[in-house]
Amino acid sequence: MSGHSLLISWQLKDKNVLIVGGGEIAAQRIDSILHTEAQITLVAPSDGLNSRTKQFVASHPDRISYHDRLFSGVDELKNIDMVLTALDDPEVSREIVDICRTFRIPVNAADIPPLCDFYFGAQIRDGPLQIMISTNGKGPRMASLIRDRLQKGLTGIEGGAIQKVGELRELLKERAPGIGGEVGKKRMKWMTKLCNTWSLEELAMLDKETMSKLLDQGWKQNAVPTLKDIGGRPRHDVDKARTGDSFVFSKQVFFASVIGIMTGSLCTAYLMAVRRQ
Amino acid sequence: MSGHSLLISWQLKDKNVLIVGGGEIAAQRIDSILHTEAQITLVAPSDGLNSRTKQFVASHPDRISYHDRLFSGVDELKNIDMVLTALDDPEVSREIVDICRTFRIPVNAADIPPLCDFYFGAQIRDGPLQIMISTNGKGPRMASLIRDRLQKGLTGIEGGAIQKVGELRELLKERAPGIGGEVGKKRMKWMTKLCNTWSLEELAMLDKETMSKLLDQGWKQNAVPTLKDIGGRPRHDVDKARTGDSFVFSKQVFFASVIGIMTGSLCTAYLMAVRRQ
Repeated sequence: MSGHSLLISWQLKDKNVLIVGGGEIAAQRIDSILHTEAQITLVAPSDGLNSRTKQFVASHPDRISYHDRLFSGVDELKNIDMVLTALDDPEVSREIVDICRTFRIPVNAADIPPLCDFYFGAQIRDGPLQIMISTNGKGPRMASLIRDRLQKGLTGIEGGAIQKVGELRELLKERAPGIGGEVGKKRMKWMTKLCNTWSLEELAMLDKETMSKLLDQGWKQNAVPTLKDIGGRPRHDVDKARTGDSFVFSKQVFFASVIGIMTGSLCTAYLMAVRRQ
Repeated sequence: MSGHSLLISWQLKDKNVLIVGGGEIAAQRIDSILHTEAQITLVAPSDGLNSRTKQFVASHPDRISYHDRLFSGVDELKNIDMVLTALDDPEVSREIVDICRTFRIPVNAADIPPLCDFYFGAQIRDGPLQIMISTNGKGPRMASLIRDRLQKGLTGIEGGAIQKVGELRELLKERAPGIGGEVGKKRMKWMTKLCNTWSLEELAMLDKETMSKLLDQGWKQNAVPTLKDIGGRPRHDVDKARTGDSFVFSKQVFFASVIGIMTGSLCTAYLMAVRRQ
């Protein structure tokens, strides 16, 4: 299938994002950008700010630089790395997009897809884990429905597991420093093997002590021990705890019991009757 | 949690993407871009092309314009909207990134995260549905593991359901044309209500005939009928078919039967013995 967008993870560390508008969409955009490390410049007349936008401005003075005015022209784009318009006026949006094109600044104009360099999608966030669901413009509500369905498939430990793997990776880099080359490949191979053999549940249980043992007994000998090998709870118990191997009294179990009791009664009655004759 | 990237869906319709390099990473990048509508310019000496890259070049002459040479400098970036380097040489990557920065062209340099404007992540594609999983650089292997876990939570009908919703939306726009404004809001509200009340399975079953009925009986009267209302299979049946309400002979059912038989036998034996005395 051709015609897809390119889903990417845009880096905003030390960047400046201009948001024009102060309504509900602006609040959603501010929320998205606050999750990054970018600075926000917000341009909107104060009488057009909704309560959520007002709250963001009040609670994040270090991140949001607010200007109580209408968009005033090209000077607003000085030192700006990305622009998000959240306006009811398509004409002003179009004007802003034109200026962005001139300076090749990535821009999203809310509600006007043809003017956008990029779209937003439904998202799941869990610590360092981020998931985006895009329907390629076919239905924003469907993206939310798929998100809810995916969310049910996650146990909630995924973000924690990723966090721990990231920490272990940093410790490994301290022990075996160097960018790229042979050592880089060896590190990547070892980390991949660990992620492939340990369950997410086990990875999420890593602590400083287990990490040390893992590097001492594993990395040094170029092997990946099991959690049990290095003195942790064995994998079976963890999996059992997770999948909940407990007795569930389902409809099927109920019928099986009833049919069992009837079968047992009839057979016994028959056998005893036969024996008595 | 701050420090996240901004996950976005980049639009590449009528755009030109330059890929520099011809190894395995280049092949992955070509694969990603072929899913979009962008044209690809590939610059790499032919003796450095791996087999997959060669195959892509041979099978997509309409999409890939291939140049058998090393990156030759700033002229390569004429009319280019995005650059992806896939090189073993970090010095050349750095040089290319510097030129991109001058012209503000979004760039990804494989294996050199600090030089990237954006990263790629693990992906799920199903028709118009696209899902990206990012671990914010904490572990690429973990992203693949999470993808596999999410994939299990999807039934495979999601992409089809989104496709059908997209088609219905287009038909609705033909019946009630106009961009934004009151009619736009009314359309969005009706589509949202439909997506909220119909199951994904029902939406995936929409055909031209059902869509017409839905618009005739639903949109006109500003209501959302059920699939049964417009003569489709009722929802209950569909859900039943999906969740597989058939008898499963599990371990639990087996034990329930055995215990049932024993209980039945013992009770009957006891009762008959008592009666006989």
